Amino acid sequence: MENCVFCKIINNEIPSTKIYEDNYVLVMLDIRPATKQGGHTLVITKKHYELITDVPDELLNKISLVIKKVSRALLKFGKGLNILLNNKKIAGQAIPHVHFHLIPRFENDGVLVERWTEHSYEQGEDKKIASKIKSLLK
Amino acid sequence: MENCVFCKIINNEIPSTKIYEDNYVLVMLDIRPATKQGGHTLVITKKHYELITDVPDELLNKISLVIKKVSRALLKFGKGLNILLNNKKIAGQAIPHVHFHLIPRFENDGVLVERWTEHSYEQGEDKKIASKIKSLLK
Repeated sequence: MENCVFCKIINNEIPSTKIYEDNYVLVMLDIRPATKQGGHTLVITKKHYELITDVPDELLNKISLVIKKVSRALLKFGKGLNILLNNKKIAGQAIPHVHFHLIPRFENDGVLVERWTEHSYEQGEDKKIASKIKSLLK
Repeated sequence: MENCVFCKIINNEIPSTKIYEDNYVLVMLDIRPATKQGGHTLVITKKHYELITDVPDELLNKISLVIKKVSRALLKFGKGLNILLNNKKIAGQAIPHVHFHLIPRFENDGVLVERWTEHSYEQGEDKKIASKIKSLLK
């Protein structure tokens, strides 16, 4: 897609530090890693899709297996690993081209990606919300 | 696995608010949602595995397609969606049984899951790290 940074990287119009590439998926370092130790990696589809729901099943399976493969390496590089996919700008998706963040973790690395304030449901609210989501599944 | 909360939920020894279930995958509400609007959902494998790298390829494909299906519903429930898998305690994995967090997002919901301090690489450091990760891929 025109003016998409990731499409330009895939077309070699913008340089990147590649880790893995096949016909469907590209894996590269994020130029602004979330830790000072680095190794923060992006796994992207070569074809331009915005959201996980846009990715065809077969390609989603391909990218999942690449994520697993790269995760094995990153779990040796770091001591733990967050895998994060942000869908839509409100969820932090800076570039509207599917990209999984793989963030190797280290002691006291300052990353808070897995921290959030825990809320609770009023009695019965959880059942209502589950019903609503179930109806949206159809 | 004995003493695993998610295995107990799967065996119906502990109640949960289920959204979807098949022979391989269970989808339920997280009892402590990351937003007050709720809908924070967990997608787990029925069989006990700790890390993404432990999940057999075929099952990973199955769970990926369930995540896509549930994401479609949650993108209607909220205005955006984070999908997060924490691997190992240091990365925030509270329960050592593979569970994907699907967090629907709303305006000013206070979730900071996609925020981190951006670091940068010294000249040449990125290439060195990419080489190291590539060697770990093998």
